[in-house]
Amino acid sequence: MHRRTFFRTGVAAGLASLTRPASVLAYEPPPIRRAGPLRLNSNENPLGLAPAARSAVIEGLTEANRYPLVAMAPLREAIARRHGTTPGHVLLGNGSTEILRVAVAAGTMGATGTLIVADPTFEDVTDYAKPFPYRTVRVPLTSGFAHDLEAMREHARQADGPAVVYLCNPNNPTATLTDCAEIESWITEAPERVFFVLDEAYFEFVDDRRYRSFDQLAVTRPNVLVVRTFSKIFGMAGLRAGYGIAHADTTARLNGYATQITPNHLAQVAALASLEDPDVIARGRAANARGRRILTDVLDELNLEHLPSHANFVMHHIPGDLRTYQRRMRERGAWVGRPFPPMLSHNRVSIGLQAEMEEFAGILREFRQKGWV
Amino acid sequence: MHRRTFFRTGVAAGLASLTRPASVLAYEPPPIRRAGPLRLNSNENPLGLAPAARSAVIEGLTEANRYPLVAMAPLREAIARRHGTTPGHVLLGNGSTEILRVAVAAGTMGATGTLIVADPTFEDVTDYAKPFPYRTVRVPLTSGFAHDLEAMREHARQADGPAVVYLCNPNNPTATLTDCAEIESWITEAPERVFFVLDEAYFEFVDDRRYRSFDQLAVTRPNVLVVRTFSKIFGMAGLRAGYGIAHADTTARLNGYATQITPNHLAQVAALASLEDPDVIARGRAANARGRRILTDVLDELNLEHLPSHANFVMHHIPGDLRTYQRRMRERGAWVGRPFPPMLSHNRVSIGLQAEMEEFAGILREFRQKGWV
Repeated sequence: MHRRTFFRTGVAAGLASLTRPASVLAYEPPPIRRAGPLRLNSNENPLGLAPAARSAVIEGLTEANRYPLVAMAPLREAIARRHGTTPGHVLLGNGSTEILRVAVAAGTMGATGTLIVADPTFEDVTDYAKPFPYRTVRVPLTSGFAHDLEAMREHARQADGPAVVYLCNPNNPTATLTDCAEIESWITEAPERVFFVLDEAYFEFVDDRRYRSFDQLAVTRPNVLVVRTFSKIFGMAGLRAGYGIAHADTTARLNGYATQITPNHLAQVAALASLEDPDVIARGRAANARGRRILTDVLDELNLEHLPSHANFVMHHIPGDLRTYQRRMRERGAWVGRPFPPMLSHNRVSIGLQAEMEEFAGILREFRQKGWV
Repeated sequence: MHRRTFFRTGVAAGLASLTRPASVLAYEPPPIRRAGPLRLNSNENPLGLAPAARSAVIEGLTEANRYPLVAMAPLREAIARRHGTTPGHVLLGNGSTEILRVAVAAGTMGATGTLIVADPTFEDVTDYAKPFPYRTVRVPLTSGFAHDLEAMREHARQADGPAVVYLCNPNNPTATLTDCAEIESWITEAPERVFFVLDEAYFEFVDDRRYRSFDQLAVTRPNVLVVRTFSKIFGMAGLRAGYGIAHADTTARLNGYATQITPNHLAQVAALASLEDPDVIARGRAANARGRRILTDVLDELNLEHLPSHANFVMHHIPGDLRTYQRRMRERGAWVGRPFPPMLSHNRVSIGLQAEMEEFAGILREFRQKGWV
């Protein structure tokens, strides 16, 4: 494995975390008296925007009345450097959701297409397919909560014409991994009419040795798109910035479906500052590990089965009706995940700050005392 | 005319300007020693972001790590109030360009469509049509630089299947008006397969008595979309916020093609603050009138013919090669408009601050001395 490739893997990110000073890893924002609810419903980063990104936004206000072109090339270059490639392989979007939209819009290539997704998985892709001539095939996860690559592959094989395969790894809402070697073996054998969308939104949270990015494969193969976001480890969900990595021909083709000049200037400068801050990733990973430990401890204590989490959220079992549980949580001041059918006996809870997870643990114990979980 | 309708017209905006205090109307930002070029190339607002919008962005940073949902409903409501309608008629976008993209993507309705545009006009619409099955018809402007409604109408009549008609009024790049009564008479007689996109990006700059918005027609007719932007009078080009006003069925249909949750949180709060600031529009109109006067005076002085401007830019004649002129301007430190074929003997120049227009006037006089214009 090349050194550069190595440093892009989740494992390497883990090692990098270990080398940051303890003060960086221990960072949590100063406790604020929260007026609102516990927001554990959208897999956001509780640390907030990186301080450097915050300063960049304030400085960027002097350019707010100008079309956002000055920071676009530097951002594209910084992203390209991060993936050991060149700017022509980078597709910028108004959140990674725009990249998903564009991939779906371009995917049928005028014909009737087949969209193959896991069940459950992140919903945006199937939402975006609605106005286009897609037949959507939902393939249940395996008993180990991985993508059922065998079954998906069979659907792609049977598809008549273009197929779009969406692989969210780690998967949302389960936080579980699908074996990268198996994905790669499928991709390298698939015909070009099968277009792979690899959503790596939670890439930086993964510690598994077998996990890796498909960015290099995306650069070289026209039917592979890797999707990344600034909404998770970089704490920028409100600023809507994401990107795709793809073959230069694919980038050019997909750009035809994108909204012009996205994301906005403030999102661009915040993303650039976040990429240049050496502590953002390590700090986010460390905080996530602390919060996840508190959460999994209370789930274990209460014997609530949970899936192994490789991201900034945990899917755990809930006895009884999920909607009742979610409503009671909301009444108690905690927002937790939406329902993800068909997993209607599980709840997705996002990982917050230490104090927030302790508060959530307290609520769960109350619920147990009331016989609600 | 209803009082509410009256206050939405350009004329009313003009009257409103007169009623603001002189200190508001005279406002120009403090002179900064400009490091960069004179930016007169993108019809941006030289006054910058409104102070209230600036504060709203800085306050909004505490929400930057959360998906931008808290300010979305208030923004939609404020826009609806502005147009005397309800939030279900408002389509939010990442700049008005996203609304144009969505209209084009939705416009063929699966069949082969005809896209009818003026020549020249704003280019985004034809750019967005490229990947879709459109036949694009470019209809030259009349000798008075209005849309040639007769000719466009004939193309729509002959179109076999869905047609999208794009009317930019005032038109970019000419800043000229097309008669609203004639547009209305076409719309009210057209079959539903003809979809009208009325781009009112420069609405607030217009003073002509016969000019008006088509927002009320858009609310009631499913085949009319009015497009507005925060990039011009509101000085938010870098923040990418725009919207559409349409029938509720149309809004729902077009939303299927939009990127989810746009614009971003900072753009939302800036837009909301700008709408609530009573001085933004009057101040922008007054500054534009001052700058336009300096510009048209020097064009008259040098006998450079110019089209009557109803916006924040002026299209004027250039003897000789346009690209040479634009290059020389760039070398001299002034960015002016791109070429707009087929009008290759005209240059589009945006209206800047008083000091900027005086600088530009000086450059033009220099060019005259050199025999370049």
